[in-house]
Amino acid sequence: MTDVPMTARTGPKAAIASTGEIISGYLTAQAGAFLRALPQAVGEAGSRPGALPAGGASAAAAAGTAELLRAVRRIGGALHTFAAVFDREWAEESRSELRWLLNLLAQEPALLRRSARLLAALDSLSETDPQGPGMLAGHTGAPKARALLERQLTLARTRAHSTVLQELRSARLHALADRMTLLASDVPLQGGVSGQPGGALPALAAEAFGALAAEVQRLPLSRAATPYGGEGLHRLGTVPASRELEPSRARDGEVDADSAVAADDAPWHRVRILVKRARYALEVCGAPDPELDLLDRTLHRHQEAADAAVTVATAARTPRITPATAYVLGVVHADQRLEVEAARYAFGHQWPKLSLGLPETQGVPPAPRMG
Amino acid sequence: MTDVPMTARTGPKAAIASTGEIISGYLTAQAGAFLRALPQAVGEAGSRPGALPAGGASAAAAAGTAELLRAVRRIGGALHTFAAVFDREWAEESRSELRWLLNLLAQEPALLRRSARLLAALDSLSETDPQGPGMLAGHTGAPKARALLERQLTLARTRAHSTVLQELRSARLHALADRMTLLASDVPLQGGVSGQPGGALPALAAEAFGALAAEVQRLPLSRAATPYGGEGLHRLGTVPASRELEPSRARDGEVDADSAVAADDAPWHRVRILVKRARYALEVCGAPDPELDLLDRTLHRHQEAADAAVTVATAARTPRITPATAYVLGVVHADQRLEVEAARYAFGHQWPKLSLGLPETQGVPPAPRMG
Repeated sequence: MTDVPMTARTGPKAAIASTGEIISGYLTAQAGAFLRALPQAVGEAGSRPGALPAGGASAAAAAGTAELLRAVRRIGGALHTFAAVFDREWAEESRSELRWLLNLLAQEPALLRRSARLLAALDSLSETDPQGPGMLAGHTGAPKARALLERQLTLARTRAHSTVLQELRSARLHALADRMTLLASDVPLQGGVSGQPGGALPALAAEAFGALAAEVQRLPLSRAATPYGGEGLHRLGTVPASRELEPSRARDGEVDADSAVAADDAPWHRVRILVKRARYALEVCGAPDPELDLLDRTLHRHQEAADAAVTVATAARTPRITPATAYVLGVVHADQRLEVEAARYAFGHQWPKLSLGLPETQGVPPAPRMG
Repeated sequence: MTDVPMTARTGPKAAIASTGEIISGYLTAQAGAFLRALPQAVGEAGSRPGALPAGGASAAAAAGTAELLRAVRRIGGALHTFAAVFDREWAEESRSELRWLLNLLAQEPALLRRSARLLAALDSLSETDPQGPGMLAGHTGAPKARALLERQLTLARTRAHSTVLQELRSARLHALADRMTLLASDVPLQGGVSGQPGGALPALAAEAFGALAAEVQRLPLSRAATPYGGEGLHRLGTVPASRELEPSRARDGEVDADSAVAADDAPWHRVRILVKRARYALEVCGAPDPELDLLDRTLHRHQEAADAAVTVATAARTPRITPATAYVLGVVHADQRLEVEAARYAFGHQWPKLSLGLPETQGVPPAPRMG
């Protein structure tokens, strides 16, 4: 997520560009990146057998997928934030197809990162080096818990990989690729938008910021501001009534752990999406903001730790594991929820420092082309 | 531990007292408190059968024991810090006997507090109220883990109680009571000390502070200053070589969890003892320091959480527990180590604010009489 193109070629001499020039410049650049990355991601995947290679997807395919995801996120974000300037039907269809591809492709790399995160945490907790041992140093359950997590995450990755292989040969992907080819040469704008001064874009970016700020107001930032409030483990946020009433999840107004934790994390995950949208909107306006990138990384950490905690809780429900294995998984689970809490604390300190760096001018320089 | 007598009756009119007057005033007051509390603690204990009553020791006996421990700690601390002014042999013997009584009596209340701490943590972690559920809300292992911890801690308390009952009727306790009776009327000072100006005592108190400051310098305060460094769980402090070589504990330069955690906590426990000594030394000088009391409470929390974590780790080694029980114990264990980390973070912020409030004057007012 540290992949912000910071290569803005805008200088003092940049001409004042129109709305059409700015948004088209950005989207054609991103569509070009999409089309360049696609064969690497698809071709590699298509040429391999269905089973996951020992080392996971090859480095080239992984890099291709990462590039593809990067472009998909940015195009989708721009189509959302600047929806007013596009042909409406086209923009909505495009966003829907890009979301499908994002959900499809993001899973495998996410599982790979989760595996690395959890095994590193487990190794650190069970480290026996006298220079910096962990609280589970030499625990008999540690190698078993490691093997269990590794096995379950590898299985999940193999499944995700097979799904990707199937879908990457689908007509749906070909149609999306055609759509991006068209976008790379011609952006379907609303009639009359093209020649307008570029000031309309910062105004729409400011709306994205407004949505972000409003959602942040709903976060329990004052709770998160005190370190070690136990917020990720104890005293989670209130679970809304609709959730309580899900019959499979709760009984008599009580909640279970899965729904409690999901309800606690949900507002933070929503803010993460809004941070990304604001971040990409600033990129479109040619004014990427490092502080916003930092917030995005912090909430990325929050999401990854929260997802990893769910994986551990699920692994702990595996039948016939030993008590020692379960005990180690309990420690690792709490450790990941502690990471969740730490990310919230960090966010609570980073957010107030954010200066909304929207360009002051009515017109903004043309968006940089990413290369 | 919030029991500092703050009732100093010293005012601007207080006469300048001699060393003998100050130290004798303090010790006779504490010895008096000891003798008043003893029958309540012993008499109650002696009149009850060996088994622990359902609600634990009776409230009166518990209060008596608390008073007794308070006096024991203060007399022992004064005898250590101001050793130079006492008859040496008498002071050493007295300290040794007071330590014996402290170790004997402190166990049962500590187990009671540990039980309350762990069950509260477990209840909070497994809370199912939608207004503030825990990460283990409704977990099947929670009631089992609760019952296991409660059973093991009650058993430990019953054992500690029986030991107390035996020893409270011993000749050793009678000898110590006689010693305190003597102290209440006559403090055995070194020849020549009695009439000296009281300035010798602040100088000795300053030495106690020096020992504290030197030990604090050895703490990893810079690590603890950053919240969520994972210090209580991961990357514990270096385990000294002597520990590594304990044959039962380690093999081939590796350490196990028990010795790693013990080595990590040891310097903090040492500092706690030195904080107490400095705190009581200031009381003797008639200048109790609320900041020092705060540090004492913080390190008390550190010690209690560290001890509770050991109890949970031990409980998790119980044969034939279910994986769900073990899993919950793992979470509770990590939660207590998180409390350890939180206490270190708090100490790291409180320590630099401590102003060593020793009286500036050569003579100090007579110590307040407590009670």
